[in-house]
Parts: sequence; structure tokens; C-alpha cells
Amino acid sequence: MKHIAFDGRLVVVGFGSIGQGVMPLILRHIDIDPTRITIITADERGHDVANEYGLRFINQALTQEDYRPRLSAMLGKGDFLLNLSVDVSSVALVELCRDLGALYLDTCIEPWPGGYTDPSLSPSRRTNYALRETMLGLRRSGPASTALITHGANPGLVSHFVKQALLNVAADTGHGTTIPRDRAGWAALAERVGVKVIHVAERDTQVADRPKEKGEFVNTWSIDGFVGEGCQPAELGWGSHEKGLPADGRRHDFGCDSAIYLMRPGASQQVRTWTPTEGPFHGFLITHSEAISISDFLTVRDGDKVVYRPTCHYAYHPCDDAVKSVHELAGKGWVQQPRQRLMMSEITGGIDELGVLLAGHAKGAYWYGSQLSVGEARALAPHNNATSLQVTVAVLAGMVWVMENPERGIVEPDEIDFQRILEICRPYLGPVVGAYTDWTPLDGRGTLFPEDIDTSDPWQFRNIRVA
Amino acid sequence: MKHIAFDGRLVVVGFGSIGQGVMPLILRHIDIDPTRITIITADERGHDVANEYGLRFINQALTQEDYRPRLSAMLGKGDFLLNLSVDVSSVALVELCRDLGALYLDTCIEPWPGGYTDPSLSPSRRTNYALRETMLGLRRSGPASTALITHGANPGLVSHFVKQALLNVAADTGHGTTIPRDRAGWAALAERVGVKVIHVAERDTQVADRPKEKGEFVNTWSIDGFVGEGCQPAELGWGSHEKGLPADGRRHDFGCDSAIYLMRPGASQQVRTWTPTEGPFHGFLITHSEAISISDFLTVRDGDKVVYRPTCHYAYHPCDDAVKSVHELAGKGWVQQPRQRLMMSEITGGIDELGVLLAGHAKGAYWYGSQLSVGEARALAPHNNATSLQVTVAVLAGMVWVMENPERGIVEPDEIDFQRILEICRPYLGPVVGAYTDWTPLDGRGTLFPEDIDTSDPWQFRNIRVA
Repeated sequence: MKHIAFDGRLVVVGFGSIGQGVMPLILRHIDIDPTRITIITADERGHDVANEYGLRFINQALTQEDYRPRLSAMLGKGDFLLNLSVDVSSVALVELCRDLGALYLDTCIEPWPGGYTDPSLSPSRRTNYALRETMLGLRRSGPASTALITHGANPGLVSHFVKQALLNVAADTGHGTTIPRDRAGWAALAERVGVKVIHVAERDTQVADRPKEKGEFVNTWSIDGFVGEGCQPAELGWGSHEKGLPADGRRHDFGCDSAIYLMRPGASQQVRTWTPTEGPFHGFLITHSEAISISDFLTVRDGDKVVYRPTCHYAYHPCDDAVKSVHELAGKGWVQQPRQRLMMSEITGGIDELGVLLAGHAKGAYWYGSQLSVGEARALAPHNNATSLQVTVAVLAGMVWVMENPERGIVEPDEIDFQRILEICRPYLGPVVGAYTDWTPLDGRGTLFPEDIDTSDPWQFRNIRVA
Repeated sequence: MKHIAFDGRLVVVGFGSIGQGVMPLILRHIDIDPTRITIITADERGHDVANEYGLRFINQALTQEDYRPRLSAMLGKGDFLLNLSVDVSSVALVELCRDLGALYLDTCIEPWPGGYTDPSLSPSRRTNYALRETMLGLRRSGPASTALITHGANPGLVSHFVKQALLNVAADTGHGTTIPRDRAGWAALAERVGVKVIHVAERDTQVADRPKEKGEFVNTWSIDGFVGEGCQPAELGWGSHEKGLPADGRRHDFGCDSAIYLMRPGASQQVRTWTPTEGPFHGFLITHSEAISISDFLTVRDGDKVVYRPTCHYAYHPCDDAVKSVHELAGKGWVQQPRQRLMMSEITGGIDELGVLLAGHAKGAYWYGSQLSVGEARALAPHNNATSLQVTVAVLAGMVWVMENPERGIVEPDEIDFQRILEICRPYLGPVVGAYTDWTPLDGRGTLFPEDIDTSDPWQFRNIRVA
């Protein structure tokens, strides 16, 4: 089924697992002439897929010096730039698209090369918080071509899960069924329901029968992408219920102040969380834009004073081979392994259980999300595994929304129509379930050793953090 | 080649991977009638191996109530009790053997069931330090049948590696080639050479093409053994060069005071270390008896005052599937997975690089140990992988030494003839290498984030510990 017709040109920057995986969805659901699609990428990966679909393929990385002339020759008013790259500045591309009147979507606010790990930048300036503030600082009054930023699975799809989950919990806890109409309404609902904590709680169980080798980083999606964000400071939206800043927690001296960062790489910090099929587990506190945008979106203020905000962060258990890869990476002082392997055809089983855990309300904690298996993903779309399909269908849905709403300027996932997005994504997400749990991060704590816990409130970050 | 003839009875308690793996070595190198060998074990595992060698096999666990009458019927003066079990008290068996005049060897000072994780015991009482003090407290003056305790690979073999490594470094740094003749001599040599830190640095790279499943603990040796010690407090021999006790470090209020413990499970604490083929990596600070005995053995005192002692601890990188298993176990609050898999025939490759890293001397750091591959292990002895063979050959060597020295009472690995042990073990260890490195735990530190490090002395535990 075609969701929309698009007669402009489409330029896709980056053609890794997401670029390759989204292409069959675009061609299936958007009425577009493949000869109007151009891929610009930094390596040969995916050339066969581009050929399969009859797309122009340019293997020449965009640089800070040449991106403007090269892209300006390919994009004009009403054309579409889909940015699925690493190492190309999202801010630069958004500015260019606005200048050209082109539509834009990315899945991450990416800096130019080295931006995540530039030791000349302060940790505060290496955060997604800083990248987001810079991006939002581009906003101007008046109409502008739409740039939907950070709209993959997470960040992206999970912001829509949060809204659906909030509605479900509200209905189940006697807070009505009215769908809020604006940001203030959503924030007020979250406050009324009493959500203290929102985890993006993900457990990827995909496995292969080919063991990880020494010196090899194995993952179900972009290794450069994961390592880049894993080496950024851990970040989390900082809730109004939190009693004290962690010893290594820092506030920023600029911007919306919705989030804090920790003085350590996110991939070195684990947190306690829960998903329905896995139960309790330790995930990595990887920084993600949604941690900042969701907590910002759901903030209630009285004048300048914040009266309500949930703590919000990612709690990511990547596939087992990636857990081992992170352990190896940490052991090498965060110097990347010489080899990478993005698991795709060799995956023998497993699911990506990706959702949001809303906790601290009257019914304890509630997880809502997708439990997509690799088998179902493969049956639904070629060139995908379970992880990529959750991203690529959200990219597709975001593109459709952008085409339907072409003059909205820079927008975040939290600001767009969650029902339209979920409607488009739903057929590709496998089982989408909601589940309550009485699990808390205090379960089983302090049995063998005294622990630094706050028994008066399970949902303090102090309890969630793994020391 | 037979090292010795033994005409007594041999009772083997426990018949897991080590029991099964040591049997071909015993029958190959000790002249013993298999009909004089009895296996007592708590489950059916290994029954086929016992049958293969014509051994009596009794599948009925020893308990605190029945071990004395049952074993007394099978053991008398000059017979041998080989304890390779879990959940049978080593202290109880050593006392019984002394009463009976029987010889004894174990690879670990094991408590009765639950002793490692009995929440009614203080953390101090759940340590290997406490178990060792209890064991050494059994020593009496006068002749007694020999009980060689904790003589597997580690604890065990590594104490002999330490002596050889110390001699090698001494020779290479101008401290002569004289082999010390007693404990005081070894300790004085370690002090003269300037060894600040001794890691038992192990990297197991064995892999299989069968991925770990959810809810399954996978390891290359006893899962119960590993989980048991992993849930004990982290422990380390505490060196005289250490400037300050860690915030969660505790001294014991009894015993020799050579070691401290941390108020957390060893499997939750990682440390920086180095082996020749792996380079730098993070290992787990699992408690082991050698951390306490080696640091005690190498202590130099002036009267009551400790003037020299090295910090000594285990830094263990188990096989990758065990790293994942530990991560899962921690995520479940140290409640064991429902299933276990001891990798043996499915292993497709890898080595167990097991040795000692002596650091802080004039040439930096020196690793000495075994780099045994699974292929070589299989070629050398049936029913073994690389990990088990390093243990089983040390058990064999220890048994030979006990038979050669039958009236020495309770002895630790550090107290016996290292050259005799290494002579017996050597043919089964694969490449045994020594390698210097200029690696220190300060390499690459503090680049992206400030870290709590002491740049004035790389070999402070504060630098080695992963925060």
C-alpha cells in the first residue's frame, strides 16, 4: 500500500544497515520513481542493494568542505534529504535543506567526524544535549521546510510509544481517556498519572552461530554508530522526584536544563531495568536524544520553576555479542577494535524487545513496545534484521509525515502526530504489547552486601544505577 | 611415563570436568590399579568416563551427616582422598584424613553448601581468607599425613609460576640467579626485585559455534564453582606500597592480615591487567586462595611490622560466553540461571592464557605462564579442554608430590617444591612463555573524562580497579 506519492528527488546520505533496510520500505510504501533516488555514501557497502533497486550510487563521502556544493546540485525546493550517515553533521545538513527548501529527516543528531570523542571539547559539549540545543537553536519563526530530526526507533518511535503507554496507564489508573492536544497537556497527564521514570528499555536477544572473534566488534546495527554514542557521556533526563545529583552528575550551563550527564562514557555505566520477556536485567546507559527530548517535552513549569519532570534514559542490552564487544572495547581503553561485523544473514534467532518502561505510578511499572523477531522481520522486509526494521519503518513513517507536513520547520518526534506514525509502523513491529510489572530496582538488593539504596522511593536513579 | 607407583586406595570426591579430566592423567602417570579407585559424586555426570576406565562410581552426595562413616570405610593410612567436589567442606575432609592417616589434595577450600552466600555470615566470614585461616588453624605440630590444599591451576600452579617468574625477573634485573631456600628467602627476593603487584592474569579465548542461550550459564569449567566464588566478596592480598584502603575495602579482625576484601561480589568488580596475546583487558576480581597465600608467603616483616608485601589478586577474563553469563547473572541479582552448559566438545577454538603478571620492578611488568590451546589440550589428554588441562595436570603433579612427601601435614602450594611441580606439568601446558611489557594501568586514562588515578605510581590498586 502506498501511503503517499512523492515526485521530488530523494538523496540518501549514508547507506549502511538502515539505508539498505529502509529502501524496500520506501519503494513499497511511497510512490516514487527509483531513478530519482541518489545514494551518497562513504564506502562500498550496499552497492549491490542500490543496484538491485536501480538507484544511483555515489561512493564519495561528504565532507565539511564539499557538502554544500555537492548537495545543492542535487536538492531543491520540495526534494528530500534522508540523512542516515555517520560523520556528517546533521546541523549542517538541516541548515542547507532550509536554505534550499528541501525536506529532511535523520535518526540522530550527528556531528562532523570525531565530534563525539574530541578531547578538546568539554564533556558537556560532547553530549547529545549540546547537539540538540545547537539544532533547536536553528529554529526561526515563520514557515520553513520540515526537518524531522532523530526519527528512527530510538530516538523516534519510542516517543510515540511513550504517548500510547501514558494513555494506557492513564486509562488503567482512573485518569481518563482523553488524548492531550498539546505539549502542556501531555506533560500534565504524565504528572497526574505520577510517572517518575521512563526507561527506553531494550533487550536484543539476536544470536548467530558464528562466535565473535578477538578484535572484532559485533552488533546488529551500525558499529560506528554504537561506539560513537557509547563513548559520549552517559546522559539522562533528570526528574523532579530525584533527591540528589549523583557525585559524577553535572548540569549544563546552557539550554533547557532537562538533562544531566555523568562524567563517564555511557557504555561504561549500567542501569537496572525490565522488559516483559527478559524480566530484570542490566542495560547500558547510552546517551540518546530521546532521553533529553522526552523529559523536556513532559516538563511542567510554574513560571520558571520546574514542578514536574520524569527521569528518562536509555537502558540498552544490545545483542550478547555486542555486550562482549563493549567489554573488550572498555578493556582496550575505548580504542575501537580493528574489525567490525554487522550481524545480518548469520543471525539464527532472537528478538529485539524495544519499548518504554513507565514507572512510579499507581500500578508500579508498565512496559509498552515491540517484540519483533528476526524471523518475522525477514518475512516482512528484505535487507533487515529485527533491530534495523524497528528503525527503518520509523524512518519510513517519519518521511511520510514530513511529506504530509512539508512546512513545519525543525521538529522533534515528541511534537508530531503519534497516531499517524504508529499506524504506519504497526504492521512491521511484530507483537506490540503492554505489560505491567511489580518489579522495582530494589528487588533482591542488599542481601549479601549492604548497598547504597533509598528504600523510601524505588524509582530514585540512585537505585537504578549499577555501582 | 609413570612418575610414581601407588598401591593404596584412591577415593575421588566430585567428578565434574576436573575429575573426568584428571583421570586419564592419573592412570597414565601414576602406577595404580583402577579397581582401587572409587568415585563419589553428587550426580550422574561422568559415569561414562568412570566406566571407560573401570572405576567404581557412587552417585550419592556426601553430606555433613554421613561423610565420616562413609569415607572412613573407604580410606585408611596411606590411602588418598582427592577432593574435586563443590559443596563438601574441605576442612572437614582434611580433618578426617588426618584422623585416618590418609593423604589429601583439593583445588579449593570449599565450604558446606551455601557457605559462600550465607547471608547470616558476615562478608568477612564468607571470604577465602576466612576459609584459609580455618584450614591453617588445623595445623598441629608433629608429623601428620600430607594434605596439599588448593592445588589446581589457580590456586596451585600459579604459585609455582610466581617463583619461576621472580627468578627470571631477578636474573634480568641484576638480582642474581640464586634460588631461595625458604619462605623468607623468596619474600626477600620479591622485595629486592621490587615487585609491587602480582596479578593472576588469565584470558580464556575458547569459543563454540553454539551461542549461549537466555537463562543459560556457559563456561569452560564448573559453573557452580565459578558462580560460588564470584558471589564471594572480592579479595586481594594487600601490598605494602598501597597508599590507602579503598572506600569499600575492609581488613579482617582475625588471622594473618595479608589480604583485604571489598564489600561486593568479585564478579561485579573488574580490574585492568595484561597478557601477551590479549594485551590490556578487563578481568574480574574473583577471590582466590592464591591472592591471600602468595601475598602472605611473600611478606617481609621487621618484628611484627610488615615492611614488604605485594598486592596480589586474580584478574580473570573467562571465555566470552562466561562474560555474557556473568552479565546476565548480575542482571538477575546474582540468582543463578536455570540452566548450565560446561563447554567441552562444542569448543571450536581458542586458548587459555593463564599466568602471573609481576609488576612494579625495574623492567615494568613481566607475564609468565601457559598459553594452552584447546586443540593441543585435546591432543594431549582426553576429556579435557584448555582450561581443565591446566588444572588437571596441576592436580596430577600435586598428587605425585604428596605421594613423594606423605608426612608433611597441611601445606599450601607456595610451600612445596616448585621445580618438581613444573617438571611434571610442563608437557601439558602448551607454550610456556615469559614476556615483558611497558603496559601500565595508566595507559590511555583520563583522555575523555577526568579519572580518579594516581599518576605518581601506576601500580596502585586505585589505578588498576575499574570504576
